[in-house]
Amino acid sequence: MSASPSAQYSLTLRVQIDHLPGMLGRVASAIGAVGATIGAIDLVAIEDGHTIRDITLQTADAGDWPALRQAVDAVEGARVLEATDLTFQLHEGGKIAVAPKAPLRTRAELSMAYTPGVARVCRAIHEDPERAFRYTIKRNTVAVVSDGTAVLGLGDIGPRAAMPVMEGKAMLFKEFGGVDAFPICLDTRDSDEIVAAVRAIAPGFGGINLEDIAAPRCFEIEERLQAELDIPVFHDDQHGTAVVVLAALHNALALTDRRLEELPILIVGLGAAGVAVTRILLEAGARQIVCCDSRGALHTERADYLDGSMHPSKRALAERTNPQRLAGGPAEVIDGAQLFIGLSGARVLPPEALARMGRDPIVFAMANPDPEVSPEEAARHARIVATGRSDYPNQINNVLCFPGIFRGALDARARRITEEMKAAAARAIAQIVSPEELREDYIIPSVFNREVAGAVAAAVAAAASAPQTPAGSAPQTPAGSAPQTPAGSAPQTPAGGAP
Amino acid sequence: MSASPSAQYSLTLRVQIDHLPGMLGRVASAIGAVGATIGAIDLVAIEDGHTIRDITLQTADAGDWPALRQAVDAVEGARVLEATDLTFQLHEGGKIAVAPKAPLRTRAELSMAYTPGVARVCRAIHEDPERAFRYTIKRNTVAVVSDGTAVLGLGDIGPRAAMPVMEGKAMLFKEFGGVDAFPICLDTRDSDEIVAAVRAIAPGFGGINLEDIAAPRCFEIEERLQAELDIPVFHDDQHGTAVVVLAALHNALALTDRRLEELPILIVGLGAAGVAVTRILLEAGARQIVCCDSRGALHTERADYLDGSMHPSKRALAERTNPQRLAGGPAEVIDGAQLFIGLSGARVLPPEALARMGRDPIVFAMANPDPEVSPEEAARHARIVATGRSDYPNQINNVLCFPGIFRGALDARARRITEEMKAAAARAIAQIVSPEELREDYIIPSVFNREVAGAVAAAVAAAASAPQTPAGSAPQTPAGSAPQTPAGSAPQTPAGGAP
Repeated sequence: MSASPSAQYSLTLRVQIDHLPGMLGRVASAIGAVGATIGAIDLVAIEDGHTIRDITLQTADAGDWPALRQAVDAVEGARVLEATDLTFQLHEGGKIAVAPKAPLRTRAELSMAYTPGVARVCRAIHEDPERAFRYTIKRNTVAVVSDGTAVLGLGDIGPRAAMPVMEGKAMLFKEFGGVDAFPICLDTRDSDEIVAAVRAIAPGFGGINLEDIAAPRCFEIEERLQAELDIPVFHDDQHGTAVVVLAALHNALALTDRRLEELPILIVGLGAAGVAVTRILLEAGARQIVCCDSRGALHTERADYLDGSMHPSKRALAERTNPQRLAGGPAEVIDGAQLFIGLSGARVLPPEALARMGRDPIVFAMANPDPEVSPEEAARHARIVATGRSDYPNQINNVLCFPGIFRGALDARARRITEEMKAAAARAIAQIVSPEELREDYIIPSVFNREVAGAVAAAVAAAASAPQTPAGSAPQTPAGSAPQTPAGSAPQTPAGGAP
Repeated sequence: MSASPSAQYSLTLRVQIDHLPGMLGRVASAIGAVGATIGAIDLVAIEDGHTIRDITLQTADAGDWPALRQAVDAVEGARVLEATDLTFQLHEGGKIAVAPKAPLRTRAELSMAYTPGVARVCRAIHEDPERAFRYTIKRNTVAVVSDGTAVLGLGDIGPRAAMPVMEGKAMLFKEFGGVDAFPICLDTRDSDEIVAAVRAIAPGFGGINLEDIAAPRCFEIEERLQAELDIPVFHDDQHGTAVVVLAALHNALALTDRRLEELPILIVGLGAAGVAVTRILLEAGARQIVCCDSRGALHTERADYLDGSMHPSKRALAERTNPQRLAGGPAEVIDGAQLFIGLSGARVLPPEALARMGRDPIVFAMANPDPEVSPEEAARHARIVATGRSDYPNQINNVLCFPGIFRGALDARARRITEEMKAAAARAIAQIVSPEELREDYIIPSVFNREVAGAVAAAVAAAASAPQTPAGSAPQTPAGSAPQTPAGSAPQTPAGGAP
């Protein structure tokens, strides 16, 4: 969509430049002429008759690089010695490390952290397995689990190629939520095997973040794991997206003085995110939703509903949405909608269809990198536009949710992430934008806003600890005071072993 | 065995002491009278009429602590305010963390480490999965996998209670080998499920260290995993122990001028370690081995061999050892043995039986914490004594092996850890002790000797890269230069994406 220079195509050129007046300017001009943006220029060395400089650039595409290199080489007295792709350089050797929290340099340290002293701690946990939350990494550690079948916009690229994303996610968990997360990429696409593997590795983890697992398999995997495990299982592509959409919507409705209950909504795309967004909006009170998948609007008289071939995740939504049984593609059912949510693919909607929306249209066009309608075109019809992109206002990004929601769940030692906890997270994210700050192009905080994760964590922990209103949900907190029990008198004889 | 104070029972007493001459001495005397050793004494505060001090102690047992506290309280003018168990304190919240290698504070950093830039790296790995070794943590990361069924001397304590040991192991991997290791404790004891889970999580790891899995299941699990995976699978309880025993033996034989080929050996205990030690000694050239399990000496006319109930791991040894078919318990078959290796349990051998050993007896009594014969008693008969304990000379400790052997295997990108690599590791460990230093009480380097891991890694990597002599073994290094291929021209267009 855009060909402007981007940090993802950052390059450092090491250039040898003859020591003559105006040379650096000529090199810079040559670089600019190819469309690259110059960032830092570092002096590496001054040698006899020339200087060596590192020029760091952003370009629109790696395809520009040969031309860029030629352009510099074409400047008389300049020569590219070396080109370094900064994105690949950053990934060299992976992006996370395992760090011991204490040194092991003396016999006394070894005796306490490892044998023989560690046996005392093992025995204490064996006596009361809840103590694992106190004396092991379980308390603060989340597995980021993927099978590599639905990675970013890349699709089914397999577990090895999914690792850089999961490592990045682990970085974000730590940077924003203080959560230790570890990537686990699975060499299987079989639901039973995925469930078995995650269940098997669960003892060391305090939570499971499922990631980039293709729909509709992801729904079943999440449900089965949550039913079997006593730690939170959270498929971020579903619920992280749903929470942030709900947060943005809270603020969009406040700004335009409307209530969710009366808002006509069109949701396009029923993958993991689309299904979860629809569910969270229904949970939050939305009553007028029409959902479209690739076959058009969902309803209970569609052929695949009637013949039973529709997946249960969609069936359930067909029964709770589109009571008028509107039929057709997005452009045919958009009339009067006041909110359009796109979670599908590039350009599924002709922009002019937005003209038929109802009052104060809100457009969340979240396909990445190319939205369902371009933000520029959407802005001609809509009052509020949000996307998944960082280079437009109102970026709907999961990083606003997952570090804080897991931080809160771990702090409260929640056994699952309930609807109440997700709703609390959405409100907390929305409230970071104060009523005074709220504007059409600022309905959601920046991903770099350092207040967000803490606010989300506090709200989520409070919701986890509050008595639940709806019946039938599983308990959230295991015996409130249990975590403290082994601590109380622990210093004296925590592990028994002696009277 | 010993009731001397140990760091594993370290305690800090916060004591309020009246500000009068000689008070601290009286408190210290009271502590000493209970048998505790005082380490550091820190001044916390000077208040009106008294001082607050932290007195850090080592005791022989946590059972001594109430008496200790009473003894201090019994000193007039002294009062214990608080007691902190330092071992449990060290384990609070677990002992390892996940550390991002780069910050994520700006949009440019996010664009390179995560979306959208990470997609370029994912695509590059998708095109050539070998690149995972370059651009993900796979290159330097080992899973420390246990099912918690044979943890230290504690036995089957389950996966949660095993975590502190596996976290400690991860610390040692990093501290000594620079290897990022992550603990994976499995909630299953079923061999098929263990194999399936480890196979599933393998894509993100460069090696699998199996740990504390009960015999004989451990043999099958290791073999099946190594057959299915293209990264090293190494059961440390077997091979780590075997390598260090062989290292110690090299030096013991050098010191006493004997050859392994002619050495009569008695091995007691055929769990994971005993089987592996027997195998490595056979591999190294030993010809006169007798092995004992709980039923006595192994041979091919024993009832369980004849009726087929003997486990295959022992059957294979029965066929390669004890050609004279000696029968009976350790004390009955020890006559003339010049090396006794105990890998069983406390006091399986009456010390006086050692008097019937052959010339220059070598005793490796490695049951922990209580050896097969006490080192003091063994020393009356044996020329060289080694144990698994840190409080006697010649400690045979796996930490001398596993950090270096994985470091070397990862550096060489070996697909398995071969017999040659283990033999090279043993030689490298032995050679740390120079001929000039070699003595009866110094046949193996200290676990804190910083030279060991590097020397082991270099020897192991060299062995991995050398062409193999025996036929039939799997290849060790995947296409020697493959790792470098994507690197060569990587800076320019490593991920394709553009011409």
